[in-house]
Amino acid sequence: MPVDLSPPLKEELLPVHGVSLGIAKAGIKRPDRRDLLVIQLEEHAQIAGVFTQNRFCAAPVAVAKAHLSGPLPIRALVINTGNANAGTGQDGLDHAEATCAALAKLLDCQPQQILPFSTGVIMEPLPVDRIIEHLPVAVADLSPDNWFAAAHAIMTTDTVAKSVSRQVVVDGVAVTITGMAKGSGMIHPNMATMLGFIATDANISQILLRSLVKMVADCSFNCITVDGDTSTNDALILIATGQAGHAPISDADHPDFGRLRTVIMEIAVLLAQMIVRDGEGATKFITIKVEKGRTREECNKAAFAIAHSPLVKTAFFASDPNLGRILAAIGYAGIDDLDVAHVHLYLGDVLVAENGGRATSYREEDGQRIMRSSEITMRVVLNRGEAAATIWTCDLSYDYVKINAEYRS
Amino acid sequence: MPVDLSPPLKEELLPVHGVSLGIAKAGIKRPDRRDLLVIQLEEHAQIAGVFTQNRFCAAPVAVAKAHLSGPLPIRALVINTGNANAGTGQDGLDHAEATCAALAKLLDCQPQQILPFSTGVIMEPLPVDRIIEHLPVAVADLSPDNWFAAAHAIMTTDTVAKSVSRQVVVDGVAVTITGMAKGSGMIHPNMATMLGFIATDANISQILLRSLVKMVADCSFNCITVDGDTSTNDALILIATGQAGHAPISDADHPDFGRLRTVIMEIAVLLAQMIVRDGEGATKFITIKVEKGRTREECNKAAFAIAHSPLVKTAFFASDPNLGRILAAIGYAGIDDLDVAHVHLYLGDVLVAENGGRATSYREEDGQRIMRSSEITMRVVLNRGEAAATIWTCDLSYDYVKINAEYRS
Repeated sequence: MPVDLSPPLKEELLPVHGVSLGIAKAGIKRPDRRDLLVIQLEEHAQIAGVFTQNRFCAAPVAVAKAHLSGPLPIRALVINTGNANAGTGQDGLDHAEATCAALAKLLDCQPQQILPFSTGVIMEPLPVDRIIEHLPVAVADLSPDNWFAAAHAIMTTDTVAKSVSRQVVVDGVAVTITGMAKGSGMIHPNMATMLGFIATDANISQILLRSLVKMVADCSFNCITVDGDTSTNDALILIATGQAGHAPISDADHPDFGRLRTVIMEIAVLLAQMIVRDGEGATKFITIKVEKGRTREECNKAAFAIAHSPLVKTAFFASDPNLGRILAAIGYAGIDDLDVAHVHLYLGDVLVAENGGRATSYREEDGQRIMRSSEITMRVVLNRGEAAATIWTCDLSYDYVKINAEYRS
Repeated sequence: MPVDLSPPLKEELLPVHGVSLGIAKAGIKRPDRRDLLVIQLEEHAQIAGVFTQNRFCAAPVAVAKAHLSGPLPIRALVINTGNANAGTGQDGLDHAEATCAALAKLLDCQPQQILPFSTGVIMEPLPVDRIIEHLPVAVADLSPDNWFAAAHAIMTTDTVAKSVSRQVVVDGVAVTITGMAKGSGMIHPNMATMLGFIATDANISQILLRSLVKMVADCSFNCITVDGDTSTNDALILIATGQAGHAPISDADHPDFGRLRTVIMEIAVLLAQMIVRDGEGATKFITIKVEKGRTREECNKAAFAIAHSPLVKTAFFASDPNLGRILAAIGYAGIDDLDVAHVHLYLGDVLVAENGGRATSYREEDGQRIMRSSEITMRVVLNRGEAAATIWTCDLSYDYVKINAEYRS
């Protein structure tokens, strides 16, 4: 059961000029489910991406990175769910290339103009024949109005499709941004942590788009964790088709770029939070703010130590304010010269710990009250600098174990 | 249900000359359970220890470290379960000191000659009055034959008491070594990861004992993980009473020291493995060997990335050879220049992966056969150097969540 997360409404997802989406049921893992998606881009669309840093990165990640850094403009993306095509060696690379070649033929472009993406089980051979066989169905289905179906076609253990749209005025012109993402397990930052696709019809230069996608990932998908496992297939892709009709933006100081960036960032943060809300077995959505650290890096260390602790996560699942476990996690986060006597811990608005121990004002019933809510914010004040970091995570429940013990069977 | 772990037999636990143990029921967390232990050492006993590196280290850890580095010889240890006296600020330190002072008075020595240890819930005030009230009961109970009861008195969520004895001939004299440990959750290395006490009547110099305890910890308790949570209270203590009657050993090159060290190490490894076998909710005992790495550090990185992955651990719980999850964990272990095409993965004697993907000889039923066993050895061959590391861990089951969601209630 996702935490305070509803599926998107079809009519809320706005088409983006220059982006068409087509879906097919290729029977990749199971019969009769949408599992194949083609996204076609009109000419002159700019595209940038960030990818997993996992050394066992999937074959499609390797191919997508190569095509993205090549000289030809990207014309389409092909995404399958049900099989990650990761840990598949040379065969996997051949299958990813073959998929690109087949789609290129259908779209009358070069294979290097296609980016492939896969998500699903690792170390199983990709059923490339079934994918190629169903690509014409997906191409025949191409339409700008297919974001809703597309968001469903990229799901794996997700229980809710994740997609959101916004509009903003740039240069006097209404610009649309629509994004979608998938992910609920094997979620850990430092590479986009899932599949995410955000498209806008704004006109943004390639160089600016490249720096933007990194900034967006760092403040959204790199700030979430479900289980600390870094996927082999993570990717975040940002597309700007330029079809909205305003003059190209190539400078971050452009008067309207800040607003556009803010909205793109907002969409990315919303999608990232949706992934946590739909985290495998999640019953609580937890925001961890670490403040007054010396560097953002050490704030992140403390935040992720808390977020990754199975003991903290199970205590949240139980609504048990066993808050010493949070102090323990801060203590082993790797901030070598941390003076714990200066650390303050707040749960919601309740001061829990100060002077190296339980705050004298702290009452168990106050902790209990906060722990029972499904949305919890925790604030750790290190009191040794001016840096801060915020991350989002969820609890660890029986259902996480159940989902992951039963995933393949 | 612990994995292939039986409780010790009382008659197998050999007394160590110069060590007496006394137990009391102080009602620290629950009434009518053994929760207070005093270990008295005869004069001239040498003692050395390693402690948690958690910055939120418990009050007794701070006090024990101070007393251990002081000028006076240590004459006794006092250990309570049911309350960690961690995250308790100045009050916690006062309580630990008061406990030492009370015991010192009973044993006619200085408070600085007592080492305090606590284990249990974090951030609750230590019920120091009840402890001091029951110390006379524990002192009246002091006897060299109490190892069995003592091993029970230090348990928290442990389901099985952990203690083992060995004898070895040193300098023509029979020397006894008996150890005990507690721990089953909040288990992660890099500080002894639990409470462990190993005593011998061998005659070993203080300097040699100090280097020995570090070496022993590194090869035993620092090689295990249950949940990656580093406790605030971890300690491993090594005692040598010198009562066996042989000439003092102060040189690691002494002809019999190697044998003695081997047996002490064996006891430490057995105790460490017992902690994993009794890991919270454990149904599988998993040995992870990483071989042919460039450094032991990078072998450890890969081993612990696998051991900490909730996805790997739940797959083991389900006996599901979803082995791509292991490749993914190796991939994000932080070995930056790892060429995954050279990595070989074996499960038991079965080659699972090579050339960056599934081995052509691999059959699912072979993986399934190994996964069903309760003792599993996994071997990762990095093929880039000559270093190796071995660690021990367990799976992640419903019961881990249950135990830790319900621990305080």
